[in-house]
Amino acid sequence: MTSKINHRYILFLIGFMLTGVICFAQSEVVEDFKPSSVNQPGKQFPQVNSERRVRVSIAAPEANLVQLDIGGVKYDLTKDNNGVWTGESAPQDEGFHYYQLNIDGASVPDPGSKYFYGAGRWGSGIEIPAHDREFYALKDVPHGLVSERVYFSKITQVWRQCLVYTPPCYENDNAKRYPVLYLQHGSFEDETGWSAQGHASLILDNLIAEKKAVPMIIVMDNGYAYKPQNLENADRRGRPASAFEEVMITEIIPMIDTEFRTLKDREHRAIAGLSMGANQTMRIIMNNLDVFASYGGFSGTSNYPSADDIDVNTFLGGKFKDGEALSKQIKVFWLGLGTKEPDPFPGSVGAFRNMLDNIGLDHVYYESPGTAHEWLTWRRSLKEYAALLFK
Amino acid sequence: MTSKINHRYILFLIGFMLTGVICFAQSEVVEDFKPSSVNQPGKQFPQVNSERRVRVSIAAPEANLVQLDIGGVKYDLTKDNNGVWTGESAPQDEGFHYYQLNIDGASVPDPGSKYFYGAGRWGSGIEIPAHDREFYALKDVPHGLVSERVYFSKITQVWRQCLVYTPPCYENDNAKRYPVLYLQHGSFEDETGWSAQGHASLILDNLIAEKKAVPMIIVMDNGYAYKPQNLENADRRGRPASAFEEVMITEIIPMIDTEFRTLKDREHRAIAGLSMGANQTMRIIMNNLDVFASYGGFSGTSNYPSADDIDVNTFLGGKFKDGEALSKQIKVFWLGLGTKEPDPFPGSVGAFRNMLDNIGLDHVYYESPGTAHEWLTWRRSLKEYAALLFK
Repeated sequence: MTSKINHRYILFLIGFMLTGVICFAQSEVVEDFKPSSVNQPGKQFPQVNSERRVRVSIAAPEANLVQLDIGGVKYDLTKDNNGVWTGESAPQDEGFHYYQLNIDGASVPDPGSKYFYGAGRWGSGIEIPAHDREFYALKDVPHGLVSERVYFSKITQVWRQCLVYTPPCYENDNAKRYPVLYLQHGSFEDETGWSAQGHASLILDNLIAEKKAVPMIIVMDNGYAYKPQNLENADRRGRPASAFEEVMITEIIPMIDTEFRTLKDREHRAIAGLSMGANQTMRIIMNNLDVFASYGGFSGTSNYPSADDIDVNTFLGGKFKDGEALSKQIKVFWLGLGTKEPDPFPGSVGAFRNMLDNIGLDHVYYESPGTAHEWLTWRRSLKEYAALLFK
Repeated sequence: MTSKINHRYILFLIGFMLTGVICFAQSEVVEDFKPSSVNQPGKQFPQVNSERRVRVSIAAPEANLVQLDIGGVKYDLTKDNNGVWTGESAPQDEGFHYYQLNIDGASVPDPGSKYFYGAGRWGSGIEIPAHDREFYALKDVPHGLVSERVYFSKITQVWRQCLVYTPPCYENDNAKRYPVLYLQHGSFEDETGWSAQGHASLILDNLIAEKKAVPMIIVMDNGYAYKPQNLENADRRGRPASAFEEVMITEIIPMIDTEFRTLKDREHRAIAGLSMGANQTMRIIMNNLDVFASYGGFSGTSNYPSADDIDVNTFLGGKFKDGEALSKQIKVFWLGLGTKEPDPFPGSVGAFRNMLDNIGLDHVYYESPGTAHEWLTWRRSLKEYAALLFK
């Protein structure tokens, strides 16, 4: 009897596996592709279908091999009789992804998409419509402004650019002052990321319209900042020492407090960042608790990339030693992570949370369902975090 | 004697021609190339040399033919042993040019350059340093803000974007109000052109710092605007009727006058545009002399592309019939053109100027030396025009 069942079970398993193989081999692409929402005006490709596949198409009549390069995988395209290459990716996570085309070995932007700065280059991006995309949709609600401010940084001796979101009501009352969130991008991104890919302004416009967030100013600057002497002295194998904290504290904040109608006390300043920016901004707030009262770490902590237990006596120079004192000083301590983020993020964020529990510092922890180390995780993080600030 | 001279002359001519051929064949490219000022961060190519040649370089190991496509000419690149293709253009005019790469028949952006919207696509641009580039250089003077404003247009039933420059002093005095220049882009460009390629904000920052221009607000919107029913009814061979004038008069100006501290009378409103925008804005001011008092036409007029004599009784519905009345109403009527602009621009602008002379309407005419139908002509035009406004 046992043997019979095992037999049947094995046959079932073989049958299941064969069906799987056949299904995979025959798997049809669902033909409901639509142009991506971040295409250039009038461009029909790239497209996205209901399975969340990306289809690209480009004329390259003399090419030998054209590929779509997305999510770390290169997909060969197929050439038609007119010399147009077309093909699609496997289903992608919902949200925003960087990608490029590969034409006979040349890695280039897709001429159909708009371009975004990330992965260390201006290049193609695509939006896979998320089930919860309404929170960053462009809606018929009052809209704030995003302003570009160029300034010369004496510390780094270069011109830098800062993007500043002012809420919808900002221009209506010339006497009212606002709290400020300083919001930082991640590695190989720049000050444009939170505005273009992150939709920070739309997220806040929508939260403010629904009265879920306090109207606030958001300052988005560039996290890469180096003193000339440090650039010269940099170890050839490593990065030069960052001067970003000094630029933030002594150049950016005074400029913002002069040029915008801000509330200038620590209770009305928050700081947050994603990935590298989470690490940077954690160091900045812990060194400057007189300047900021709230912290948001989106997919990152300052113990990155380690998942080891944290020794509070040595970590960040002992800044987390006194949990009781920190509990009184910090109004919001917020951490977020996507459920699909790869190592070492879950491990290092997990170790950091254990440390917070050990010192008795309350924090909010959010998990973005079904997203990896990408912008939908951070859009959702901003929405959750901003709703808690300045209350 | 005559014969002898002719002989010598002919020999001289032959010698001169041979020298010319040899010089051309041997012509060396001057090896003082430097990365373009509008490269992506850290990118070494494209480059420009003192002869104003553009050199590009891209790895495409499997490609058969890679070309640089600039100024209407395609230059073949040469492949080295590492699969990197490199080559340069003939000398270009000083100023800003759009360009692209051609890889085995695929026309794509150069992954080394920043991207600009023009020629109907987001794509590569390059800056050939102009001898007079100081007037649009980023200098240590007070800088204004460029703000992005999204708004829903009821007329066109789509979301649109407006860029607004506010002068450096704007945030300092919350009571002061400012005159406004409405500034339009050309064909196949958009509202980002004047800010990114045109350097409108830097030009005004510099003029204001030198007290050569009155501090003013500049509004840059998108000149393409269509009512849904006109899009549906459009002749398949032609463009739908433009709704831009209606959008400008009934949506954009009221929004700007509500949200910014503007001076709201016609004496404190000017309008200008380049190429298609010159044509559009001329029609707008002539239909709305109660709204605007000054006009600037950069490389364009509303009789374009005709070089024929203009009949003032029929042209623009007779709006130019009464030169004496117009002379009292219009404070600045300004026209500009590059000396290297191709037909039909010189002919149509010339015919238009003749008409102005015939009706006795004073105008300022400016020629940009050594530039064609490109952005350096328009940067110079803005500098000259803005200095005359609101005085």
